[in-house]
Order: sequence, then structure tokens, then C-alpha cells
Amino acid sequence: KQYRIAVIPGDGIGKEVMPEGLRVLETAAKKHGVSLHFDHFDFSSWDYYEKHGQMMPDDWKDQIGKHDAIYFGAVGWPAKIPDHVSLWGSLIKFRREFDQYVNLRPVRLMPGVPSPLANRKPGDIDFWVVRENTEGEYSSVGGRMFPDTDREFVTQQTVMTRIGVDRILKFAFELAQSRPKKHLTSATKSNGISITMPYWDERVEAMAKKYPSVKWDKYHIDILTANFVLHPDWFDVVVGSNLFGDILSDLGPACTGTIGIAPSGNINPEGNFPSVFEPVHGSAPDIAGQGIANPIGAIWSGAMMLEHLGEKEAGKSIVDAIERTLAERTLRTKDLGGNADTTACGKAVADMVD
Amino acid sequence: KQYRIAVIPGDGIGKEVMPEGLRVLETAAKKHGVSLHFDHFDFSSWDYYEKHGQMMPDDWKDQIGKHDAIYFGAVGWPAKIPDHVSLWGSLIKFRREFDQYVNLRPVRLMPGVPSPLANRKPGDIDFWVVRENTEGEYSSVGGRMFPDTDREFVTQQTVMTRIGVDRILKFAFELAQSRPKKHLTSATKSNGISITMPYWDERVEAMAKKYPSVKWDKYHIDILTANFVLHPDWFDVVVGSNLFGDILSDLGPACTGTIGIAPSGNINPEGNFPSVFEPVHGSAPDIAGQGIANPIGAIWSGAMMLEHLGEKEAGKSIVDAIERTLAERTLRTKDLGGNADTTACGKAVADMVD
Ligand SMILES: CC(C)[C@H](C(=O)O)[C@@H](O)C(=O)O
Ligand SMILES: CC(C)[C@H](C(=O)O)[C@@H](O)C(=O)O
Repeated sequence: KQYRIAVIPGDGIGKEVMPEGLRVLETAAKKHGVSLHFDHFDFSSWDYYEKHGQMMPDDWKDQIGKHDAIYFGAVGWPAKIPDHVSLWGSLIKFRREFDQYVNLRPVRLMPGVPSPLANRKPGDIDFWVVRENTEGEYSSVGGRMFPDTDREFVTQQTVMTRIGVDRILKFAFELAQSRPKKHLTSATKSNGISITMPYWDERVEAMAKKYPSVKWDKYHIDILTANFVLHPDWFDVVVGSNLFGDILSDLGPACTGTIGIAPSGNINPEGNFPSVFEPVHGSAPDIAGQGIANPIGAIWSGAMMLEHLGEKEAGKSIVDAIERTLAERTLRTKDLGGNADTTACGKAVADMVD
Repeated sequence: KQYRIAVIPGDGIGKEVMPEGLRVLETAAKKHGVSLHFDHFDFSSWDYYEKHGQMMPDDWKDQIGKHDAIYFGAVGWPAKIPDHVSLWGSLIKFRREFDQYVNLRPVRLMPGVPSPLANRKPGDIDFWVVRENTEGEYSSVGGRMFPDTDREFVTQQTVMTRIGVDRILKFAFELAQSRPKKHLTSATKSNGISITMPYWDERVEAMAKKYPSVKWDKYHIDILTANFVLHPDWFDVVVGSNLFGDILSDLGPACTGTIGIAPSGNINPEGNFPSVFEPVHGSAPDIAGQGIANPIGAIWSGAMMLEHLGEKEAGKSIVDAIERTLAERTLRTKDLGGNADTTACGKAVADMVD
């Protein structure tokens, strides 16, 4: 079977890291007998917006909705275009309209990447953050009243649906069940956020009954962030709402050294729509155009994409190659104390794939 | 002038750390010619609830509302009483009804306290988290519809008022202006939480115009938590909403080694109502009754209380004594690698006060 992949480099360093991601994907595909076909798209970028006055063509769903997956670089350029136009016009649109209700990110301390945490070694930190990706705190319900007076107020609703909460919890419990430690941690704040968060807890408890082999616990988000720093070895699968998952999946990678190498999947598990795989880092306008961006986040996202497509071995060969590359100082990019540029680092990973 | 302090030990280790806090306060008061009068109250505790079926007497406001400050231990005992009864029946009630709209917490790496962050030394990390303490994400507006069906959903509003946002920002900008670095960082998430957070940003921008000597920046909460770990030296005053401030003021102390020594003030800056000073840690049922709790959080909270009352020198003498105590391993409690019990540690600090 041939997989059709929509490739969207987007903005800034997105354009620089994607060619390296593709290089490594092609190498791994060839070695593992996987057939990948890439279609390239220039929308979801500032360039496209400048020409067309919108982030994506009207028929964007027809153009990319039938692909097996979307391989994405980065979007956004706050100095040129407001976030609510660029992000809500592409990234968040994909999540909503392609019902990518799982945002999945590994937190893993890799060889050669210095951790900001004292005395942590590769192997000590290795867990997944599972984030609800369509509802919760990122709602569009709310508004402002009495503008420009002392009575002015603004409200925004957090929305949790039974369907939305249960399906992300199910995904997280199944992931936990599939792992050796079988341990799930739920992020809550039911002692302060007194309506939605107790509901979240209630659904976690109900779902846990269906997965008796999974040990689970919960922490309030405040102490949970503290425990990411103090006890990152405690975690196996961590599940949180849209906002809590967002926070934890930046904090986690920071605890393992850098968000510069972190990958992510925006996943529709049922496969009704394509899933999006993208590095966690953004378009980084400050370093764009210099050829120094770290391509590992994009490359690792490609590996996650292969695994999602069912090509586990090809995916694993890339992750292994990343580990071997990062272990060599000279093959790392500047942000990790090396001296390789984007291309050299990408080529190094491709060479390591077997 | 004599200051009248209401003392509420509360639950668990709250009862064990408060005597040490009082010991140190009395010593510092005597040495600095400050006159403190303490009134002790047994409400806001599980014991009180067991006897009376409520956390506080009906006339609690009459009993403690005229004091110059409230010195608080800890409340909550989830195994015996649900959080929404214990916390919302005391701690959060104080914040709301005494209009303690500022929650203030120092983040400071102290000598002798091992930081979980690699290569950070005392002096490297020294900032304040200023948290909005009355509104925001901790609203009581929301509800559930279609219970126990597939259509079930739950909503909860985040509420930001002009008055509420502006006054916390004013407090934070004034604090920044009073410090050598004059630097303020605002916690936002306006790229995802698209109604309330852009409003927060808007009010920050407006307030910043009134404080031209303050350099300010803003980060989305996800990358901000990452920067607490990667670049804690970047911060001077960090201001956030009720939820973001809650998260940052647990994560910050964790980055400096432990939330076990962190103090906090729940402050009504106008002095219309008493402010509450309490350690960040909770009642810790797991170690309660053993006499091993670290009293430094309570003692440091006492120092914040003195500073709030205008007794800066007496307050500073306590903070200095804490630093000198922590520097000696044998004077520290077990959680910090020492072998002192709660009382021995408290006495050591009292002895160091000058
Ligand atoms: C106990 C809880 C409701 C409280 C809060 O979230 O405000 C606590 O975490 C704090 O920071 O004082
Ligand atoms: C860019 C922003 C809207 C987005 C989010 O908060 O979801 C990003 O932080 C992410 O995690 O993908």
C-alpha cells in the first residue's frame, strides 16, 4: 500500500526543518519497504496569506482531507499576522474540523541532550502526555459586557462534553495498558476549578473501572508541574485537558532539555480524518533563514507519523537513529552545543537509519 | 502600636508548624521592639467541623475581621472531608470575603536547599509571583446539562472584571517598579484561550503605559512553565491569573528545591480587611503527628506578615535567620537532608534572629 502524505511546511523554520524530515522519512521508507507519496502544499503560511488574504483556500478540506496523514512544519509569525488569524485559521482548524481529539507528545530524556534537571540520565524520564485537543478551555463561547466602563467584564466558558472527555480518557487508559508500567496520571484542579474539573475527575474514575490492570492517580495541576521537576520518574502516561495538556507537554520537554527536539501528533484515532504530525516548536522568526534550526523535532514527528500509519519498525528505526545522532556532539545543532547546521544534522540522522 | 494577630493553625501539620512560627515571631518582635498580640482560633479545621458540622462559626467575620492580620497554618484533610467543603469553607472564603485579591509568593533559591535544577546557586533565582486571587478561572458560574446521556456537558466560566484585572496588574507593576531590575512578566495564553486572555493582554498593555520605567514582556503559560525550568534567572516579577498564578507559584518553589519552605501572603493591599499569611504546603496528613514537618514555610510567612504590617526590619531579621539556619545541615529538617525535628528547626531559627 502506498501512503499519501500532505506536506505543509508553513512559516519560518518550518520550511527549513521539513526537507530534513522528508529526507529521513524517505530513507527509512526505502530501507523498510514502505511506500510514501508526498504532496506539497504552500497554504497555512504567511506567504499564502499575503497573496490570498486567508490562511487556506476555501477547498482546503478537499485538497488534504483524503490523505493518510499531514506532515506539518510550523505556523505563525506574530509580527506579521495575529495568532488568532494564523493559528485559528490553520492548526486549530485542523484539530477541530479533522476531529484530532488526541494531542500526543513523548517526554523522553535523550542521550547527549543536557537536562536542566540535576542528576537525571537517559532512561530516567520516559513518558507520554495525552492532551484533549478539541474542547475544554479552548472554547469559543464567551464575550464582553459594559466595555470601557468600571463594570466591564469578560467571560469565557470551559466546555467539557461527555463524549469529548470519555474518548480522550479511553485513549489514555489504553495507551497506559499497553505499556510495561501500566500507570496513568490524571491532571486535575478540582479543588479550585469547582465545576468542570470535578466532572473530569468523575469521568476518570468511571473510565478507570474498565481498565483494572492500570494503576492510576491524580494530581492538581499546580503540584503536578512541581512533580514534573522534582519527580519526572514518577510518570508513565499523563492525561490532561486541552490547557493542562498544553502546559504539561511544553514543561515535560523542557525538563528533558529542550522543546527544540520534541515531536507531536494531533491524532484522529478512528482514521476518519488525517492526523497532523508536527514539531512542538513554532516558526521561530528570530532564527528563521539562518539554516541553524534543529530538525530533530520534525524528524521525530515523522517517526510518530510512521508509527501511526502502522509502520512501527520504520518509525522505530528513525527514533533509534535520532538517539545515535544526538549522542555525537558534532552532529548536533548549535542549540544543543554542537556545530552542525540544519542540513548536516538531518543528513546525519538519515545516515544512521537502518 | 500593638498589632492584633488572629492565629489559625487549622489541620495536620498546620498545628505543628504554627508554634514554631509564633516562637520566631515573638523573638523577632522582642528584638525589634514590635508589639504583637495573638488571639488563637480553633475553627477552619477538621476538628471544628466534626464538632459543629461547619468549618467556621457563623460570626467568623466578627471574630477575626478586625485583626491586623491572620496567621494561618494549613487546612484540608481529603480522607475526612471533601476539599470543596474544607477549602471553600475557609481559605477561599477568606480570599473572597476579605477581598484578598493579591496572592504573593517569593521564588528564591536559598543556601543549603538543593535545587532540582542543575548548576543553579543561591542568588540565581530570586523573583516574586503575583497571583490574582479572587476571580478568573476560580468562578462559581457554570453547570451541567443532559446528565448521564451522551449529550451530557459541563461548562464553567472564567470571569475577568476590569476592576479585578487592573488592580492586580497595578500591584504587580508597582512591585516591579520598586525592585532593582524593574522587570515584569505577564503569563498569558491568548493564542489558545481566545476571549479572556486577549483581554488580560490588553489590560497589561494599558497598565504598562503608566509605568514607563518597568520593562515588561509576556509569555504563553506553556512556554513560561518551560522557561521557569530552563531560565529561572530571567524573572523578577511574574503576574498571572488565579489559575496561572497558582501553577507558577507551585512550580517556582519546586524549581528552588521544595514547596516545603515556601511562604505566601493573601493580601488585601488597601487594608480594608485582614490579610492571611500561610505556608504554601498543605496539611500533609501523611506526615502529620510525627513532629517532622518543616516549619520554615510558616516561619517565612510570619516574616511576610511583619513586612506587610510595615515592620520591615523585623521581617528581614527573620528571613536572614532562615538563610543562616538552612545553611547548616544539622539544623534542617529531614526533607532537606538534615536531622532536626520541627521544634529543633524552629528554635534554631529563633536563635539566629538578631
Ligand atoms: C487548595 C487550593 C484550592 C489552593 C488554590 O488552588 O488556590 C492552593 O493550591 C493554593 O495555591 O493556595
Ligand atoms: C499555538 C498554540 C495555539 C498551540 C496550543 O496552545 O495548542 C501550541 O501551544 C501547541 O501546543 O500546539
